Amino acid sequence: MPQLIIGGAGMIGQRLARSLANQDLILADVTPPPPRPGAICLTTDLSAPGAAQALIARRPEVIYHLAAVPSGGAEADFDLGWRANFDASRALLEAIRATPDYRPRVIFSSTIAVFGPPFPDSIPDDLAPSPRTSYGTQKAMIELMLADYARRGFLEAIALRLPTIVIRPGRPNAAASGFFSNILREPLAGLPAVLPVPDTVRHWFASPRAAVGFLQHARSLDLSRLDGRIALNMPGLSATVAEEIEALRRVAGQKAVDLIRYEPDETIARIVASWPENFTAARARALGFQAETSFEQIIRAHLEEAA
Amino acid sequence: MPQLIIGGAGMIGQRLARSLANQDLILADVTPPPPRPGAICLTTDLSAPGAAQALIARRPEVIYHLAAVPSGGAEADFDLGWRANFDASRALLEAIRATPDYRPRVIFSSTIAVFGPPFPDSIPDDLAPSPRTSYGTQKAMIELMLADYARRGFLEAIALRLPTIVIRPGRPNAAASGFFSNILREPLAGLPAVLPVPDTVRHWFASPRAAVGFLQHARSLDLSRLDGRIALNMPGLSATVAEEIEALRRVAGQKAVDLIRYEPDETIARIVASWPENFTAARARALGFQAETSFEQIIRAHLEEAA
Repeated sequence: MPQLIIGGAGMIGQRLARSLANQDLILADVTPPPPRPGAICLTTDLSAPGAAQALIARRPEVIYHLAAVPSGGAEADFDLGWRANFDASRALLEAIRATPDYRPRVIFSSTIAVFGPPFPDSIPDDLAPSPRTSYGTQKAMIELMLADYARRGFLEAIALRLPTIVIRPGRPNAAASGFFSNILREPLAGLPAVLPVPDTVRHWFASPRAAVGFLQHARSLDLSRLDGRIALNMPGLSATVAEEIEALRRVAGQKAVDLIRYEPDETIARIVASWPENFTAARARALGFQAETSFEQIIRAHLEEAA
Repeated sequence: MPQLIIGGAGMIGQRLARSLANQDLILADVTPPPPRPGAICLTTDLSAPGAAQALIARRPEVIYHLAAVPSGGAEADFDLGWRANFDASRALLEAIRATPDYRPRVIFSSTIAVFGPPFPDSIPDDLAPSPRTSYGTQKAMIELMLADYARRGFLEAIALRLPTIVIRPGRPNAAASGFFSNILREPLAGLPAVLPVPDTVRHWFASPRAAVGFLQHARSLDLSRLDGRIALNMPGLSATVAEEIEALRRVAGQKAVDLIRYEPDETIARIVASWPENFTAARARALGFQAETSFEQIIRAHLEEAA
């Protein structure tokens, strides 16, 4: 039985596909997924009429739904965000419901951006979502809709609220969270990087490798253990930027740290101040989800993948 | 400037309309609202194409959105529930967003059915919704969507999660919660009533009068005090059926109580067991929302209205 990765051209989608090598895979994305031996690669916009039906025509037994317009994009284009993050996901759910004798497992990548301030010191599993972005709103709404479709027996569902993923590959970009990766990835490659916030900023992290591990674990988990509460705060590492930099020093030395230049950016600092810093992730840990426990592990995962 | 009541033919909508006598009112409902002097009464299905635009053509400054297919109806007809409770509400939000220079206050009647078990002894304001019905899911999703539309400046919004309303007027019906009203209203009128659950069952109540008071208070409240968290658990009375019956005894005597016959119903008992029993409602109380503090007050409110 095939597995479908929606968002298959993305950073996590590609890594997940690699981890599922030799399995029957369908990769779908709005940008063409790189060809993979044995995998069907589809370029499609899930929000287009009929696209969801076409994607499930081969009745994938597991659907990893990773596709999204990210936070900045959904803020900049209100209609695009609702169409891509909400309507497209709903179309997928409806296409599944309309297919007779078909009850796939939908593994939905959600986000810690469903939460908004004020935050407790460590966010418990049952804190009410209070998103401060359209992106977070759309993710929280699909979590609820998925839970209802699962309750009614139309599909199986689990939603994984991912930490901020570091170290993201590629070049520095304009995303407000980009610096968390930039200040490691660039110095590790001998290049300069800009830190726009004080090093006292604390945030919640996991590596790309951990994210793929969450998705794999969600595939095999007994979902009756969720008791209808399908959205889980994934485990991660709560760390300050100073701790992040100290780990860089231990792995790559002071010469790497010296490549980081502090250039305060009020706009980025204000955005980051509204982000959560720490989670208990107690339910997810009890269900066997695992993440790194130090920034050195996150850096070493990056170096091993790059090697 | 007119005020619009969507669900204007309903139990709360009609009482609200009476309380706003001499004001510029538009009453809209799928069933024809009873004519009122000075009020425009419209029979319309908000989920029909163009209906939302037509309703706001006179640019009401306050919109009380009380219309819903209730819990049982949304469970029995999945498509109807999503269309009437979700799509119709979204159409209203979109019609508002599409209207230039128009930013009404939307007062949305939500429900304690956004919550699902397991419950703490008293539900705090920041407990995550975990609905166990499509109705509760649809209400929770519109809460989130309203908050995002308010954050973006398209409208002002507040969502009131109403307790179970007692004493409902009319004849006993098949709603699982109906007995809470039946065992008071019928004996007060000298008629027999059936109690389908043990009298140890605890639940969360307010009178129709209190519900109208919530809506009126929401109209005048400074919504900047919500800090973006637009959904509020309304205050109410946490009481057992035994306490309810004891209040009936004090108000109407043992002869009224003797009209209640205990006929256990496993189905109803199972449904009721998944309902919340108590809330802190701390935020709503601090914002000035008020409800009854004893079942005698609830009974006397009913008798005064009937008089």
